Formats: sequence, structure tokens, C-alpha cells
Amino acid sequence: MINENTVCSKRIEALKKEIKIYENISDILIFKEEDIFYLTGFYGRNSNSVFLITENGNFLFVNFIYFEEAKNSTRDLNIETILYNDDKNKLIADVLLENKITDVLIQSDFISHCQYLKMENDLRKSGIKSKSIDNPVTKFRVIKDDLEQKLIKKACSLTDKSFDFICSFKYRELLKFSESILAIEMEKFLISNGGDRRSFDFIFANNAGASKPHYSSQNIKINDGLLLMDYGVLFKNYCSDMTRTIFIGNNINNKLKEIYEIVKEAQHTAVDFCREGIRACELDRIARHLISQKGFGKNFGHSLGHGVGIEVHEQPFINSKNEEILKEGMILTIEPGIYIEGLGGIRIEDMVIVRKNKCENLYSSSREIINIC
Amino acid sequence: MINENTVCSKRIEALKKEIKIYENISDILIFKEEDIFYLTGFYGRNSNSVFLITENGNFLFVNFIYFEEAKNSTRDLNIETILYNDDKNKLIADVLLENKITDVLIQSDFISHCQYLKMENDLRKSGIKSKSIDNPVTKFRVIKDDLEQKLIKKACSLTDKSFDFICSFKYRELLKFSESILAIEMEKFLISNGGDRRSFDFIFANNAGASKPHYSSQNIKINDGLLLMDYGVLFKNYCSDMTRTIFIGNNINNKLKEIYEIVKEAQHTAVDFCREGIRACELDRIARHLISQKGFGKNFGHSLGHGVGIEVHEQPFINSKNEEILKEGMILTIEPGIYIEGLGGIRIEDMVIVRKNKCENLYSSSREIINIC
Repeated sequence: MINENTVCSKRIEALKKEIKIYENISDILIFKEEDIFYLTGFYGRNSNSVFLITENGNFLFVNFIYFEEAKNSTRDLNIETILYNDDKNKLIADVLLENKITDVLIQSDFISHCQYLKMENDLRKSGIKSKSIDNPVTKFRVIKDDLEQKLIKKACSLTDKSFDFICSFKYRELLKFSESILAIEMEKFLISNGGDRRSFDFIFANNAGASKPHYSSQNIKINDGLLLMDYGVLFKNYCSDMTRTIFIGNNINNKLKEIYEIVKEAQHTAVDFCREGIRACELDRIARHLISQKGFGKNFGHSLGHGVGIEVHEQPFINSKNEEILKEGMILTIEPGIYIEGLGGIRIEDMVIVRKNKCENLYSSSREIINIC
Repeated sequence: MINENTVCSKRIEALKKEIKIYENISDILIFKEEDIFYLTGFYGRNSNSVFLITENGNFLFVNFIYFEEAKNSTRDLNIETILYNDDKNKLIADVLLENKITDVLIQSDFISHCQYLKMENDLRKSGIKSKSIDNPVTKFRVIKDDLEQKLIKKACSLTDKSFDFICSFKYRELLKFSESILAIEMEKFLISNGGDRRSFDFIFANNAGASKPHYSSQNIKINDGLLLMDYGVLFKNYCSDMTRTIFIGNNINNKLKEIYEIVKEAQHTAVDFCREGIRACELDRIARHLISQKGFGKNFGHSLGHGVGIEVHEQPFINSKNEEILKEGMILTIEPGIYIEGLGGIRIEDMVIVRKNKCENLYSSSREIINIC
């Protein structure tokens, strides 16, 4: 539940106002579960719920499995929760007709093309015209309000703490864990300290595994070398995301140490330049330029970062093509990396809040080389 | 990687043959990551990869993050892995034109409506006509071949074992755990015994929480009463899914015991009737009828079960509307439940393989009342 201080009602009103300007109607069907959560406080993961916003009232269509939760989550809001059984589209059409609505917008960035066609067709049968609208809620979600910043900061502070937890292991203790069991221990620590659960499947990658930016942790014992840890936690449905790469044992490959310093400099510089007014692509270019100058441009094949909020990857995307200008209140990752097939990879990732003349880094965990030996 | 014995090549050929019959072309763009895994052995979770099947050859479009893994996973197959940077659609169009293809099918049950429109438009600009096709791979995935049955059986046997692990805790030990920490301990056990990781977020629900079929486990201490555990593991990208409800302490509510026996009977009867030739809706009706007769029809608000494979919820869906006839080799859950708001819920879930004259239950864990006290 996030509907403290009628924040959800305000979000719904702002959305209605916005789409009314562009589309001349403000009756809309919202399908994306994260958007429904943002607007109602109800988060039905894989629930196929639909939120209908109209001039006359708001309706949340939910199946049996989520009904009790949806009712409770939206109790203080002016939302009618409607239980659907089989023919959800027909039920939606009926509610639209009861409210004398014959034109409706359909959010098209989440439902599949074939679901869209069915919905359009089912509405047409009831004499209702529909029109697709792309990303109507993103514009709002991209700027985090005070409540959202508070929740994300809490998730980040837990994430910081859990890095200390890992670093507190002695060399011999660390070598007893496998990648995936160490990841499980970290999740346990995060939950024990107030987190809800992991915000994504942790990437704990030892040595060569770390050359794959989205590696899956294995149940294989950790060895001397590097350990890349990309992890995060959910706190009241808001995500954190952080990466640190540490070294284990006495014989650290010099090339990896050299790469570490390059990634560190690129990351630090990008954080330094991150502020309101800079374009996403410029920020990406700053980090990429530094890494390319050192000869590792080809080894930094992903984008610099992404927004984080209800989703662990959301807008704005910080890549070489996105000309979007960063604004105060955006929360994003800055995470350059260098990957060498067969050898390993180094990535350092922070989350920051964009402010007027700087950004606020949400992590205090060290970015210097940490060597457990 | 699942491409043992050229199984992936055979799957691709079967798909081409099938769609050629209905659509008269066999050039198709596949977007759903689980389908791409089924056809190529490469599983790029949230990777936005695209698999293009043509008469001249097969092409896997992957970004930098997944490129190394994609190349390795498909090494022994006749698949060209192509790295995309920004304009994936243009690259796909170019490959189509190089192969003199001007008509292509687009899988439409996974990409969003707005992505579909963009793809259609981008192809049109290159003079390529496209047509939407719904669920082209489902027909094949719904029947599990020998290799798939083997992998799922292994996942289920780990799942059975982990239930014993939980039941081995003494009463006083159990009360020291919270729902979410006990769930974490179970995942740790599953990984330690050969599982890859959980196949979904476990539902460990104590007492009133269990009345919500898709409850989120909380970090609150477990109390006397009921504990519903819905959990599963991934083994080489195949899922298991199982639910047991146990009782803790000496003072078990008599109504819950009565409900337990009703759910047990409904579950047992449905498993008994499950075999090749029965319709999904008939099977659902058998369990539902039994529960309704006892006066709890309204408290069993979800469907009886669903298919399990690469996805934890996939076709066939065992509900009151699906007239599909069950076939040998389908693997599905049978999981009736009764939920009483404020009191709790009982669910018993097994996974079975449909056979000619019966089904094979993949679990041996007891379905009798277990009372830890």
C-alpha cells in the first residue's frame, strides 16, 4: 500500500488531466501492473488485472486470487473493485456502457498484440470505440516524488549494509560458499534487516563468469580472483540495484586491477556530471569516451544505466541514443563495465537521484579496490 | 543448453512444417524468450532477443549482454548469432532482404501492441510484408518430450526432498523462523541439492495470510496454526510447482481440519480421473463439484491447475472453460484449494504427467494431515 496522503488520487487526477489535453478524453484502460500499483497501491504481479479510469469513477478488475488484496489495498481510495471470472472484456464493456462511455483509450505498451486485438474487437461488439495509447504513465513515474524517494533510499541503505555483510567474511569463510549460496545468504541478510525480497535474480559471478553481464549464479565454489556482485532488494515494492566487484586472495591479475581503475574513473566521472539538464546520451558518452580512450570501448557493450523505481529497469534509459534531458527527481543507475571473455568483468554500479546542480549518490559503499585475503 | 541429440533442430523443423501448412510460408520472427529457449537452447531472460526462422537458415538477434551466452548455447546448431546494437528492426529487415524474404510471420502473443506496430512499420519501410501469428510454438511445448520429462522429474524430486527438509524441523525450531526466512532456507536447500534457483517467489503463508492464494511471504514469526507452502525449483530451466499445507501446534481449528479433508478428497479424485482423453474443463468440474457439494464452492475461486514446463504457468490451463482434451505427455498441476478470509486457506498441489489410462504423479510427499507439535 502506498496510498498515504491520497497520493494515488493525485496521481490519477494528474494522469487524467494529461491525457485529456492530448486525446480529448480521459477514459482509459491501464494494463501494466506496475502502473496500476503506482495509481492504486494494488500490486498484482502476473494478475492480469485491469484498471479503468473514467470521468465518473475508477474501476479495478481483479480475479479471485487477488480480490481480497486488491480490496484492502485500495480501501481508502475512490475505486470500485470488481471481481471477474471468465469474460473480463465483456465485463469491462458493460461497465463502460453503464457509465455511458463509447470511446476509450487502451494502454498499448504492456498487453500483447493479440490481447490488444481481442480487447479492441470485444469492445467494438458492444459499440465502444477504442484507441491505443503508448506509455501514458511513464512520464509521471520517471520523476520520483518524496514518498518514492524515501522508499528507494531505504532499499538502498539496506543494500549498502548487505555489502558490508559480505565484506565482513574472512577469506577462508568466503571460499566455503558457492556463488548461488552466497547470493542466498545475502538475500537472507536483506530480509532479516527489513527488506521484502530480492528485486531481481542476483548476479554473483566469480572470475570468467563475470564476463557475461547477465550471468546466472552457479552452485560452484568461489575461488581466488574477482567476484562481481549485482544485487538489490525490494522495499515496499520499490527496488534497489547495486554492483560491486571485489578481489579474493593474494594473486590478483594485474590487468584486472588496471581495468578496475578505468571503470572506477569512468563511473566516478559520470556520477560527477550527472545533474538536471544533461542529456542521457551525453552522460553515456562521458563514461564511454573515458573507457574507449583506454582501449576498452569494445568491452563496454551495454548502456551506462537505467531508471529504477517500481521496476528495476525502467525509464530513463541512459544509452548513446536517448536524447532525453535528465530532470530533478529522476533516480537512475550509473554502471559502466569492462568485460573480457574468459578472464572476467568489472562493473561498479551506483544509484543516484538527479538534483539541480549535482546528483545525490544513494550508496556509501566503497568503490575502491577491496581485496579479501 | 538443451540441444542434446539435435532436439532443437527437430523442434525448429517441426514448427516450420506446421506453419507452412497453415500459412503457406515458414519464415517467422519469434519473440517469446521461453519459445526461443525451446527452439535454440538459449534462454535470454528479459533480453529482447529475436529468433528468425527462414527457409535459408536461422538467425538469433542478441544484444551485447547476452551475446557470449547465446553463441555458446547454440554452438552445435545451424544458427547464426547476430549482435544488435540499437536498430534491431532495421537489422532484421536487412537479413530478411539478404535472404530474399518479402513476407514474414510475426509472433504476436508476446510482444506488446506498440512494439508490434513498430516492427510491422519498420519492415514495411523495407518492402517486407508481415502477418501476425498467435501462439505458434505452444502446440509443441504443451507436450513434453522425453528430455523435458526427465528434467521436470528431477526438479520435482528435489521439490519432494525439500518438503521432507521442512517437515524435519522440530516444533520449537519452526517457531523461530519467519515465513520469508523459512522460504529462503528452503531455497538454500534446493540449490544445495542441485536446483538452479526458485522457479517463482515462494508463497509461505501462516494462518490468515493463507486465505490469499497469491500471498507474499512476510518476515513475521510463524505461529501455531496452518502453514501453506507453495514453492518450486528450476532445474536446467524447467520448473516444478508444489503446495502442501501443514499444521503447527496442538490446537488445530476443527473447521480447518474438516476443510483439509475436503481439499484432499477433491485433489485425490481429480488426480484419479486425470488421463489422456479427458477435457480440461471436465477435470476442473470433478474437483469443483466435490468442493461445492460440501458447501465451499465459493471458496475455491481459482482454476484447478495449469501446465508446467519452461514456464511455471503455461498451457494447458485446467479451468471451467477450457474444452481442450488432455493428451499423453502433458504435465500439469492439480491444485484445488479452499480459502476463508480471516481464517486461512488449504491447498494441496501435485504435478502429474498425463498418460494413456492414468496419470503419473511426480510427487511422493504425503497429502495426509501433518501436524508438527
